Amino acid sequence: MKDLDIFFAPKTTAVVGASLNPRKVGYMVMENLLQSGYRGKILPINLKGGRWQSLPVYPTLKDARDAEGPIDLAVVAVPAEKVPQIAREAGEAGIAGLLVLSAGFREIGPEGKAREEELLAIVRQYGMRLLGPNVVGTMDMHTPFNATFAAGFPPPGEVAFISQSGALLLAILDYALETQLGFSRFASIGNKADVDETDLLENLLHHEETRVILMYLEDIKRGPEFLQLASKVTREKPVVVLKSGRSAAGAKAAASHTGALAGSDRAYDAALRQTGIIRVDTMDELFLAAWAFRSTRYPKGKRVAVLTNAGGGGILASDAVEKEGLELASLALETKTRLRQFLPPESSVENPVDVLGDADASRYEKAFTLLAADPGVDGLVVILCPADTADPLGTARVLLEKNPAGFPVVASFMGGKGVAEGTVLLQKGAIPTYAFPEQAVKAFAGLYRYGRYRQQSSLPPLSLPEGWTFPAAAREVVERARAEHRKVLLPAEALAVAESFGIPVAGARLATSAKEAGDLADALGYPVVLKISSPDILHKSDVGGVKLGLTDREAVEQAYTAIMEGVERRVPGAALYGVEVQKMLPQGVEALVGMTRDPTFGPVLVVGLGGIFVNLLKEAAFRLVEILTEGDLQEMLAETRLGVLLRGFRGAPPADEAAFLHLLRQVALMLKTFPDLLEMDLNPVLVGEKGAWVVDAKMTIQ
Amino acid sequence: MKDLDIFFAPKTTAVVGASLNPRKVGYMVMENLLQSGYRGKILPINLKGGRWQSLPVYPTLKDARDAEGPIDLAVVAVPAEKVPQIAREAGEAGIAGLLVLSAGFREIGPEGKAREEELLAIVRQYGMRLLGPNVVGTMDMHTPFNATFAAGFPPPGEVAFISQSGALLLAILDYALETQLGFSRFASIGNKADVDETDLLENLLHHEETRVILMYLEDIKRGPEFLQLASKVTREKPVVVLKSGRSAAGAKAAASHTGALAGSDRAYDAALRQTGIIRVDTMDELFLAAWAFRSTRYPKGKRVAVLTNAGGGGILASDAVEKEGLELASLALETKTRLRQFLPPESSVENPVDVLGDADASRYEKAFTLLAADPGVDGLVVILCPADTADPLGTARVLLEKNPAGFPVVASFMGGKGVAEGTVLLQKGAIPTYAFPEQAVKAFAGLYRYGRYRQQSSLPPLSLPEGWTFPAAAREVVERARAEHRKVLLPAEALAVAESFGIPVAGARLATSAKEAGDLADALGYPVVLKISSPDILHKSDVGGVKLGLTDREAVEQAYTAIMEGVERRVPGAALYGVEVQKMLPQGVEALVGMTRDPTFGPVLVVGLGGIFVNLLKEAAFRLVEILTEGDLQEMLAETRLGVLLRGFRGAPPADEAAFLHLLRQVALMLKTFPDLLEMDLNPVLVGEKGAWVVDAKMTIQ
Repeated sequence: MKDLDIFFAPKTTAVVGASLNPRKVGYMVMENLLQSGYRGKILPINLKGGRWQSLPVYPTLKDARDAEGPIDLAVVAVPAEKVPQIAREAGEAGIAGLLVLSAGFREIGPEGKAREEELLAIVRQYGMRLLGPNVVGTMDMHTPFNATFAAGFPPPGEVAFISQSGALLLAILDYALETQLGFSRFASIGNKADVDETDLLENLLHHEETRVILMYLEDIKRGPEFLQLASKVTREKPVVVLKSGRSAAGAKAAASHTGALAGSDRAYDAALRQTGIIRVDTMDELFLAAWAFRSTRYPKGKRVAVLTNAGGGGILASDAVEKEGLELASLALETKTRLRQFLPPESSVENPVDVLGDADASRYEKAFTLLAADPGVDGLVVILCPADTADPLGTARVLLEKNPAGFPVVASFMGGKGVAEGTVLLQKGAIPTYAFPEQAVKAFAGLYRYGRYRQQSSLPPLSLPEGWTFPAAAREVVERARAEHRKVLLPAEALAVAESFGIPVAGARLATSAKEAGDLADALGYPVVLKISSPDILHKSDVGGVKLGLTDREAVEQAYTAIMEGVERRVPGAALYGVEVQKMLPQGVEALVGMTRDPTFGPVLVVGLGGIFVNLLKEAAFRLVEILTEGDLQEMLAETRLGVLLRGFRGAPPADEAAFLHLLRQVALMLKTFPDLLEMDLNPVLVGEKGAWVVDAKMTIQ
Repeated sequence: MKDLDIFFAPKTTAVVGASLNPRKVGYMVMENLLQSGYRGKILPINLKGGRWQSLPVYPTLKDARDAEGPIDLAVVAVPAEKVPQIAREAGEAGIAGLLVLSAGFREIGPEGKAREEELLAIVRQYGMRLLGPNVVGTMDMHTPFNATFAAGFPPPGEVAFISQSGALLLAILDYALETQLGFSRFASIGNKADVDETDLLENLLHHEETRVILMYLEDIKRGPEFLQLASKVTREKPVVVLKSGRSAAGAKAAASHTGALAGSDRAYDAALRQTGIIRVDTMDELFLAAWAFRSTRYPKGKRVAVLTNAGGGGILASDAVEKEGLELASLALETKTRLRQFLPPESSVENPVDVLGDADASRYEKAFTLLAADPGVDGLVVILCPADTADPLGTARVLLEKNPAGFPVVASFMGGKGVAEGTVLLQKGAIPTYAFPEQAVKAFAGLYRYGRYRQQSSLPPLSLPEGWTFPAAAREVVERARAEHRKVLLPAEALAVAESFGIPVAGARLATSAKEAGDLADALGYPVVLKISSPDILHKSDVGGVKLGLTDREAVEQAYTAIMEGVERRVPGAALYGVEVQKMLPQGVEALVGMTRDPTFGPVLVVGLGGIFVNLLKEAAFRLVEILTEGDLQEMLAETRLGVLLRGFRGAPPADEAAFLHLLRQVALMLKTFPDLLEMDLNPVLVGEKGAWVVDAKMTIQ
């Protein structure tokens, strides 16, 4: 048995706190275990002894072990303060798994937190695994096994659901019971003292009956481990995550709920995306995805044909096709000619193909067969309205039985009772089916994107070049700043650090007098730019701290004086280190390359338009450096309008994308190996026709 | 009886084509009329005569009228080619309304179109009203009356539904029958030969039982009339529209479906928004809105308190609050103190207020009462998960009965059977209730926005100033262009047209003599810039072709001569058209002010960032000029990033918004009164610290 399978398929299960009072959790768990059809041994434990229905109640785990032999799992439903003692007894009795339903731990404050730590220490001491505390429990619909206090047990199926919230698990269970959706395993993970989402993800990777993994998460406990594992799991099975706390407001609620230090949502978004996880925003979408991913017929392309018996449904589907980034397939002339041969004259043989309200199953069948054979069609969205002669059941049979090649199909049988029989049949056959056309198209889009992800070969994360050593110059800068108790590096220092990592920088040098500025300019060659150097000034242009296009020594010396005097007047008291002299760069595109450090996932690379666009557009691409691939770098450019500008916008020549990608690779190298760096802004990075350089840099160290 | 009420509550209804064959529409309509409980007189008409159950069948409408007296409505279910003759007979028999279910008209091509025109001519000749052809029919759940061939009749309620697609009406009906949602009137409008969405909207405005109006539309037939009426209706009742054909792909499907010339979606979007209609994107949202707007408790502000028995549900709601542009209310200290007094220590008394999984109805009641009394809370989202001690029914009672002041409440009772009793009770009491928290928050946001719309006093559309006359200069330009067979005005002509409408213009004018240059400069105001006008000279400054900052007439005249002579000398043989005189503009923000003409709604005003931003951002605000108000102009600025720049971005001084608004008002005046104008681009419009001017203009006439 796989390590964590003891929580889903134990041979022997003890219930500590088994009770005869139907209001108590210890009763409900006993009842659920018995009702589920569990074929393992059930050992109720209660100091009072006696019997639970036909079963003998043992006073302690030791008594039970002595009488009945080894115990795999102890389900614990006693008051929190007694849990550590029970854990110790379980350890002594050689029990491998503890499922602690009891609340009253970390979620209630410092006292509970201490109790949880004590519990965990005991678990570790005996080499046990702990799921909980503060959980609803676990279910396995195939074992079958139900060690929860929930009402109801869904039919067996291929969808697993892991929830950080017990209450949501109960709600989803209650909702799922109304539908025909079958499940494989259910678990709530509560406080995640030991077993967490990463552990269960690994367990489900190896769980054959599970083909789709759904998760509701409020945070991720072990960022790096999760990233490594998830990248692997998503290659085998679709993983759909509803991660809450997306908003600033939501994050506040998340923090007060579980006490978890939630990483910023940007980092989570990058983490889920980079590992191939399907992120959904709402409970509604979670269910939509659960139905969708039971199908494994992934469309090979995004060219959708819509087959409908109602014009209105076809239009709604067409709208959704565009919204989801899919395309309406252009049908082959032959397809249209053959459709025309049997369809009534007022049918549409253009996509969406409208077979009209009086279409029976056989008309659907003919049209379906033709569309599935059209090489320009990657998959079908089939819509059926309950028009008077419609035959939902017959049409469902057609879609299931006349499709030997497994052509991708998603359906919307619109309505309720009028189409119910057909809907149920399609769902049994793993054809995703929805009440509304927009949902069907959304499901199609999800299947297409996931299929494409699985087809792409997985790229390895960027790695360090052979023989690479940490640059001494960067080390020196950090040590000097630390010695001077500065967290923020001077721009010239930041540029020096960047340069030491092989990042091309446009050389700025500090001048502390007009003469020195003139000398530096003479050395760099004209034209040059002068910029104020001060730790107190963020937006240099705004205070007259920048002079561009200085073409001779005289202009440089005058500009030096003008900048120093002007800034002193406008920002009295600011510390002015002098003026930076820099070669004036060619025309080009200004990019921002930044970094923040996420507490869960480490450094996050940020790329977008630079200069004034940063604040105006507030758009950028985000990626975790930990698992950053060459493919990610390419994608980042395409994700924001930076990509548009780099390609040469409105007559400007194309910028040197290769040089910019090289620069990004060096930045990634720096971020990977430079734990002192807390935050960074390279802005602007100038990408010219030939070459890319960091022009200005801010770095904060930790 | 109101004019169109004959389609919903006729005293006498004839069914032409009444059939004894259950597969025929003429049978289904008879069956539905009888089953509905309709208390009016039903007169089956069929040339065969005989009886339909207990009713005598009359061979013709005339026979029926002669025997039974006046007939209000004839429901027509005979083959298309017979319909015109039936219409004529109906007219002769003095029938007021024709409901033509038969298909085979405009939707099948030229032959059908001719037939439809013939039918309409007959209807007009006899002063009848026609609903259809090609419709499912009409229902009134209060009359009760069911003249459709649909299966099923929903319970009476306050929601009306009008559908341009008959099949969607059937699907929605079938879906609605599964829920407890009650309806007032159902109608499909098919080909809209006579009665259209505007007519029915007016009918529903006066229909007392209808409190919410839902529409599925593929196009709008009479744009201006719809705009006038809808603006009025939305002040009385919420109108929710699913307008399909939003995408380019969808629009193509729409065109082939109904042959309707669909206006561009931008114009529809503006039309719905400006008239206060609630636009939804999907069928799902249409139902969500139907449930929401049965409530008339509109939150006065956007500060939401979330009350939940599950942390997870609270976080999901918080995420949704931010996504929908609402705010989590900050609770008063007193509220929190009093919550703390009775809630368990591990509850959260911050918003979202988590009363924990073991909360019973009385704990909900106490918390609800405190939150509803907090002056910082505008409304409540109440979430209930089916935790073991949860009491959905009791909690529903609390929300309904302990809320005498009608505090706005939206609920999410999460799950299925476990919460069903509570859900049903809330829905009966018109508290919108959803399975998922995100839907509840979305409903709250809809109620808030609609309530705010109703509170705002309705502004009149911008009107012409008293004594205004059409500018002769604009007329002359158009006539000259027409005479020369030009559709596109020259830039100078376009500027002259703009100026003639009182729009401040700073574009270049061509002078062909020193005197003319002086005259132009006098008219523009100083300082001015002079530039050589020549197709042969690219870099005007390099050849002495530019003179900046000319501050008086003398300088201008001298500069003219200097430029012409200098350029002639330096570039011998270049074609010199003269010199462009242009007002010297200050620094400022570049805006785009444009116009397109929509076939349904007329001129559309477009405002956004100008210059290179136009193509990069592809964002702009759109408004129909027909019903444009002063408030719209203000909103347009806020809708795009132009607003951000105008307020003074990153240290730039604020631009002259008042001057820009004045300019927009003059533009609106031009668009309202200048039907020759087909398209227009004023780009850039420069908005400086003081003043705003059109710098360049393109206009196309029709």
